[in-house]
Amino acid sequence: MRARVFVTLKPSVFDPQGRTIVEALHSLGYDSVEDVRQGKYFELDLATTDEGKARALAADVADKLLANPIIESYRIEIG
Amino acid sequence: MRARVFVTLKPSVFDPQGRTIVEALHSLGYDSVEDVRQGKYFELDLATTDEGKARALAADVADKLLANPIIESYRIEIG
Repeated sequence: MRARVFVTLKPSVFDPQGRTIVEALHSLGYDSVEDVRQGKYFELDLATTDEGKARALAADVADKLLANPIIESYRIEIG
Repeated sequence: MRARVFVTLKPSVFDPQGRTIVEALHSLGYDSVEDVRQGKYFELDLATTDEGKARALAADVADKLLANPIIESYRIEIG
């Protein structure tokens, strides 16, 4: 079963990568892009067919290794 | 309107970051995580309310700036 984990900086945390991308886009003429936030994306292949177990395992892994809970939050999608 | 862009290495391209994460997880006892692929995730705030235009703009931006089409592919979700 596949779990997808999206890790993003919390809204209150400044995102210099996203800011740089917006400025680059504006200099290329893409003025209708108002804001960009960059995050990380992980695809986990899990040896389980139980959706609840997959979600719990992905959350555990995100807490321990994939996200820094001080400045980042994450979201999980299963399937 | 918000567009979400997921950039991942093409399946044929070796992902050393993902490999390192799997090995770290196995050493922590998470043996049921069989594989990990790491990618990038972008949230774009766009000054349009037309879904078609938002998707076209996000694809243009992904082609030009967010993804390297030689080794990466991307997927776009709107809304």
